[in-house]
Amino acid sequence: MERFLSVAQTAIDRCRMIAQYSEEPGVTTRTFLSEPMHAVHRCFRSWMEAAGMRVTIDHAGNLRGYCEATHPNAPRLFIGSHLDTVPRAGAFDGILGVVLGVALVEILAGRRMTFQIEVVGFSEEEGVRFGVPFIGSRALVGQVDDELLARGDAAGVRVSDAIAAFGLDPARIQEAQASSDALGYLEFHIEQGPVLDRLNLPLGVVEAIVGQSRGDVIFEGRANHAGTTPMNLRHDALAGAGAWIGAVEREALATSGLVATVGSLEVEPGATNVIAGSARAGLDVRHADDTVRREAVRRMIDCAQQIAVRRGLKVRWEPRLDQSAVAMDAGLMELLGPFHRMTSGAGHDAMILARRMPVAMLFLRSPGGISHHPDEAVLADDVAAALETGIGFLERLDARHG
Amino acid sequence: MERFLSVAQTAIDRCRMIAQYSEEPGVTTRTFLSEPMHAVHRCFRSWMEAAGMRVTIDHAGNLRGYCEATHPNAPRLFIGSHLDTVPRAGAFDGILGVVLGVALVEILAGRRMTFQIEVVGFSEEEGVRFGVPFIGSRALVGQVDDELLARGDAAGVRVSDAIAAFGLDPARIQEAQASSDALGYLEFHIEQGPVLDRLNLPLGVVEAIVGQSRGDVIFEGRANHAGTTPMNLRHDALAGAGAWIGAVEREALATSGLVATVGSLEVEPGATNVIAGSARAGLDVRHADDTVRREAVRRMIDCAQQIAVRRGLKVRWEPRLDQSAVAMDAGLMELLGPFHRMTSGAGHDAMILARRMPVAMLFLRSPGGISHHPDEAVLADDVAAALETGIGFLERLDARHG
Repeated sequence: MERFLSVAQTAIDRCRMIAQYSEEPGVTTRTFLSEPMHAVHRCFRSWMEAAGMRVTIDHAGNLRGYCEATHPNAPRLFIGSHLDTVPRAGAFDGILGVVLGVALVEILAGRRMTFQIEVVGFSEEEGVRFGVPFIGSRALVGQVDDELLARGDAAGVRVSDAIAAFGLDPARIQEAQASSDALGYLEFHIEQGPVLDRLNLPLGVVEAIVGQSRGDVIFEGRANHAGTTPMNLRHDALAGAGAWIGAVEREALATSGLVATVGSLEVEPGATNVIAGSARAGLDVRHADDTVRREAVRRMIDCAQQIAVRRGLKVRWEPRLDQSAVAMDAGLMELLGPFHRMTSGAGHDAMILARRMPVAMLFLRSPGGISHHPDEAVLADDVAAALETGIGFLERLDARHG
Repeated sequence: MERFLSVAQTAIDRCRMIAQYSEEPGVTTRTFLSEPMHAVHRCFRSWMEAAGMRVTIDHAGNLRGYCEATHPNAPRLFIGSHLDTVPRAGAFDGILGVVLGVALVEILAGRRMTFQIEVVGFSEEEGVRFGVPFIGSRALVGQVDDELLARGDAAGVRVSDAIAAFGLDPARIQEAQASSDALGYLEFHIEQGPVLDRLNLPLGVVEAIVGQSRGDVIFEGRANHAGTTPMNLRHDALAGAGAWIGAVEREALATSGLVATVGSLEVEPGATNVIAGSARAGLDVRHADDTVRREAVRRMIDCAQQIAVRRGLKVRWEPRLDQSAVAMDAGLMELLGPFHRMTSGAGHDAMILARRMPVAMLFLRSPGGISHHPDEAVLADDVAAALETGIGFLERLDARHG
């Protein structure tokens, strides 16, 4: 690992440099095809070309760098992550995966593999500007349709306008599709959670990206005077919601691997001296096994109904999202090595690429579990370990394929 | 009681007629000295003068009608309630107490008592226009100060401006003080709660107006990703608040006569997919015994602290109000008769008048417990029973005093 420490340090420096390209001075905010993305592309282009790669920008704004294989018509391994950020972001979410793709090519130093390598910097993953995530990776799997292209941002600028304003042609977005000779996709990404840090492990191999259920549970009672209504004659929607929040937490604690969150709660009328007439609680449930997740959600809704019956409330469930879990490819996982196996609680570009090809992800420890924040960090030793793992992956894949 | 049924029906008709004088067409909204209050004054003046009363409007905008006693220098009994309303009000909150004061004088039909009678229609009780309630009754106890007079409404109009615009003189507001010969104050009011209706009783005698504590309990945890943060590594402010809402309810159910309400809850950042970093819960606690109330609040805050410790949260208490309970006068209560004794969970003008004189309140059943709503109602039989009780009260007071 020692031998990759200086490459790792360079990778970290590159991430911190890229973080300076921002829509807002003093912080890192870089949404889909915003002005600073030109400078990011120029940076990567210079590094890639210096490493002997051929560079293009596709019409979804993805940056793509190519390495030839030992022979023509060899299949292609994709390595990448995203170049956009959340508002006031850290320096590593997304970017690190692209920087490490380039670093692996640099370490290969012109040595050809039995497969082509394409390093991709996706133009959009966070969903900040247009409210829809994964615009970049969707283009690689041919799933940017006219509806998505017509979607507007807060200023009324459409996705297609943003593409044209960047100097690209939205009519040619289908050309961004990945070649049909894909061998697979590898993504390095910071964990964005506390698990590896707590286990004191540098790296983890993702087995699956969790499926998600989202929706609102709405309790309806009767708004009434907080002074004149005795406790036993109340139909307090917020008291019902409070009891249910506890039940959601108990259900999650009792189910291995399940996370369940009530992160929003809107109370009507919402005055201190008025018993709540309604309370709308936003539920988010995630698990790597869709059956486990859906059964947990069903039990949570059942529990809401029991609470409602007991308290003379009405309750209803408004589902918003039921997104299936995405399994990583067992063969590619094995090539990464015997690291801690874990699930990803967040979505990633790999989830979209999985519609077209086998995918794998390697997580790097997030110190303190901090992400989407300027304090987001990585350890140089962990980055060196990831590079060593990546080179090992390429060599094992080369051997297997060759 | 039969003999008062037609007077009761007239009283109800008068309330419904007065409800038509409104700032908003089609609903009843009548704030402090708003334009329709002129018409309300004209109505009452005509009824009062027809009943042989002398009528004035004091410089706080209170309507005041006087009946002479059997002899000069006799003390004075005040009977009244308020003329203003909440927005989109019902027809009986406040008004009924003034209408019944006039009706009692009408029933007396010129017969003089050993005490003067002054029927008061207070100009303001609800606190809607200036955010401070009881402007009318405060004037009778000499507690409208310059700070209150300078207070502005949403349009920037000050209390003193509103008084002047109504044709009155704010500089003379001290003249509104009740005469120093007060024998007591009697207020008829709808219960605005479900207790009498549930007990199937027409009337209740108020023993005390509850004391109130209000404040916010703020839980602070750590906002975090709802997908990548395992359940056992969370510091979820909303989960803490949910548990505490349950504890508040249990505390109230375990303490006789206590009502405790969490009616507002603000969650930050408040997104479905983010664990709550903070949750601010608004607490309202009321009891007729101030010691019981304050100890209950202390236990609730202790419980919040225990929850916070258990969950790795911080918690703080921001008190906003600690208003003592106000006892009604035992002698006047006895004169009302052996009705169901109860506490008032809401504040009333009687609470303010108690600073100057003995006070008593008679509650009339609120069908369905409905108030501050156009469906607010009274039953004619209940109003007749209240009139019979009122006449009995006057006769017993007359005998006692004479």
